[in-house]
Amino acid sequence: MGYRILETEDIAGYLRERGHWGTDEPEVREVSDGNMNRVFLVTATDRTRGLAVKQALPWVRVAGPSWPMSPERADAEARAYEQVAKVAPDKIPAIHGYDSDNYALVMEDMSDLEVLRTILNEGGTYGPDTSRRIGEFVAQLSFATSDFGMPSAERKALIAASVSPELCKITEDVVLSEPYLEHEHNHWHPGLDDLAVAFRSDPRLRTEVAELRHLFMTGAQALLHGDLHTGSIMVGTREGAPVVRVFDPEFSFVGPIGFDLGLYWANTLVSAARADALGVEGDHGDQLRLSWDAFRAEFRRLWPTRVDTFFDDAFLDRFLDRVWTESLGFAGAEIVRRIIGFAHLTDLTTLPDPVPASRRALLLGRELIVRRAELTSPEDVEALLR
Amino acid sequence: MGYRILETEDIAGYLRERGHWGTDEPEVREVSDGNMNRVFLVTATDRTRGLAVKQALPWVRVAGPSWPMSPERADAEARAYEQVAKVAPDKIPAIHGYDSDNYALVMEDMSDLEVLRTILNEGGTYGPDTSRRIGEFVAQLSFATSDFGMPSAERKALIAASVSPELCKITEDVVLSEPYLEHEHNHWHPGLDDLAVAFRSDPRLRTEVAELRHLFMTGAQALLHGDLHTGSIMVGTREGAPVVRVFDPEFSFVGPIGFDLGLYWANTLVSAARADALGVEGDHGDQLRLSWDAFRAEFRRLWPTRVDTFFDDAFLDRFLDRVWTESLGFAGAEIVRRIIGFAHLTDLTTLPDPVPASRRALLLGRELIVRRAELTSPEDVEALLR
Ligand SMILES: Nc1ncnc2c1ncn2[C@@H]1O[C@H](COP(=O)(O)OP(=O)(O)OP(=O)(O)O)[C@@H](O)[C@H]1O
Ligand SMILES: Nc1ncnc2c1ncn2[C@@H]1O[C@H](COP(=O)(O)OP(=O)(O)OP(=O)(O)O)[C@@H](O)[C@H]1O
Repeated sequence: MGYRILETEDIAGYLRERGHWGTDEPEVREVSDGNMNRVFLVTATDRTRGLAVKQALPWVRVAGPSWPMSPERADAEARAYEQVAKVAPDKIPAIHGYDSDNYALVMEDMSDLEVLRTILNEGGTYGPDTSRRIGEFVAQLSFATSDFGMPSAERKALIAASVSPELCKITEDVVLSEPYLEHEHNHWHPGLDDLAVAFRSDPRLRTEVAELRHLFMTGAQALLHGDLHTGSIMVGTREGAPVVRVFDPEFSFVGPIGFDLGLYWANTLVSAARADALGVEGDHGDQLRLSWDAFRAEFRRLWPTRVDTFFDDAFLDRFLDRVWTESLGFAGAEIVRRIIGFAHLTDLTTLPDPVPASRRALLLGRELIVRRAELTSPEDVEALLR
Repeated sequence: MGYRILETEDIAGYLRERGHWGTDEPEVREVSDGNMNRVFLVTATDRTRGLAVKQALPWVRVAGPSWPMSPERADAEARAYEQVAKVAPDKIPAIHGYDSDNYALVMEDMSDLEVLRTILNEGGTYGPDTSRRIGEFVAQLSFATSDFGMPSAERKALIAASVSPELCKITEDVVLSEPYLEHEHNHWHPGLDDLAVAFRSDPRLRTEVAELRHLFMTGAQALLHGDLHTGSIMVGTREGAPVVRVFDPEFSFVGPIGFDLGLYWANTLVSAARADALGVEGDHGDQLRLSWDAFRAEFRRLWPTRVDTFFDDAFLDRFLDRVWTESLGFAGAEIVRRIIGFAHLTDLTTLPDPVPASRRALLLGRELIVRRAELTSPEDVEALLR
């Protein structure tokens, strides 16, 4: 693993070497605010040009070398961008190059956009386009990399290339088991003690989460983003038009489509709980419906282009119903782990009193998991929200 | 692909080179009777020792170079044997070595045993051990290579290593689509014309087969044998004890467990149809129950040894129920394709009048596919048989 770990002062030279930058001296600043990797922004002094460089270290950035982690997660990120670029290039940053020797990705500077979670936490709303684009994004990526959109042999190669043991294990642990066990990772607000205890001794919940865990481990349906929360989405306006960009697909692997939708839904539902707690009027509660409708419409729009025409329209109906149900389950698991598991959501933790909203969200999460088969439409979920 | 294609006269030298044989000159004869590969039996002139050599050619043996096929199928076979050897060494031939450069496997000579299908076609029965051992075989291999028996990261490596695009495509086509379409591969006895036509224009059947096809393509549950029919099983007696050996796992890949059980069941049900047509008394109709009971008992016996204890007992119950249902569906698809698809079963084709038994088997196959969710026990299937 002897590769070159880039520091701020190396970036300009590195970009020149790789043909991404001319002789002028750019401004470079590190903006890493995630847990895992380093991100540098590179700007021409006259502001006419910018780039971003993201490099994976052989460890978790915030923890340092004491928590080693294979930098091959950058390969997964590059591979995911490569697949998305074929079918939804307007929904990701433009990728200028990937240097697999150094696990470094050079991409479009998106610093004119803002991370969706930040906007929401500051009292903003989703706006009319965001969830629609996200639903389309999931449909486009998943259709293209499913057995509907990709020839059988190519799919098998993608499955083999995209296994991601280390990052999948993180999800299997922190999302799909630990919150339901005694585990040192878990922590929660004391006002949630009773629910945390109850969730760890709830046989029905446990079995349903085991189902979701197994589906996550074995359901090789399509290439996923793998970590599609509101912190992996940037939004803004360019030349008067709304822009939505999904980024950070380092958890990408071939898994169940409902995992991407579910993660996003969980984050929208938690944002709705926050808005509600603060008495903010907004569109937060509509986002599950908007993204599902867009996903489904886009998947149906793509269906006639499928490469495998043995799959008939009646199968599509069933398949979409199943994706719906599975997405609800994953949404529930994501909500729960974000409140009583390892990594919590600022949406709730920064509330003046996080307890009431967290309790409601936890109970909603549980319902989504155990009653997912009975909830047949976004309206059913909206009714639970109220 | 410049590797050494072994002819009968090369075998002794080849085995010596690789340290499998001494200076004495063995008798070597080619016994290839399958479609795909070459098999040689090697025997010491004093009969004290024997070996078998199986080599994959870069084409389908019976078709010749005009039908190219990657010899990497031999890698899949060796990999499957390697996994089985860890957990069920008594149920496969002893493997003495695999030469991946030449796609050649050196293994135990089993010529003292007989292929199960041959025994059945000659009027014999299964005997008390065969299906029990087969059920155990599927349980042992599938448990060990599932997320229950194998640590998450090792499983991901196995999934990546065992993708088998070319051979999976054969199954996807000849088992899980062609029989329900107009296709030049299909052929059938004229006495089945009406059913062949009906099966190709049966929307319910089509959608259910599409479900099975999708499950086959995406259900990465465990390493499968992949072609577990009665022609892949040898039985006999050694030192007074019954011996059952599963061989020819070249279609092995990580897929849905029910596919292995279903294939076996289909073959037992067809053998029952044959016995019935001939008025042979026998145990043919009991084999689904015997193998299912043995599978389930062995899987439950192994359950407490699972490496992933998040999966609880209630989950196991559900999981086994699902394997049951899926197995029935695959059994139905295998029956149908063996009668109106590409490759037919001698069990039926060698009957004096194959039509009545074939018609009954086809209708049974359809029931298994479309009504699999309603059939809850082996007794339900036995009732359909009558
Ligand atoms: N192309 C870009 N343009 C501008 N800013 C970016 C770009 N990529 C990343 N960033 C900034 O860097 C931050 C971290 O990026 P990213 O989420 O990809 O890194 P990470 O370490 O993988 O994060 P996580 O720990 O969430 O997985 C983002 O939140 C964003 O503020
Ligand atoms: N180890 C062995 N000992 C004795 N005979 C063997 C052995 N292996 C295979 N045979 C004989 O060779 C035949 C072909 O073997 P096998 O089924 O493995 O080959 P194949 O070409 O892959 O067949 P298929 O076309 O069914 O896939 C068997 O039916 C059996 O008669």
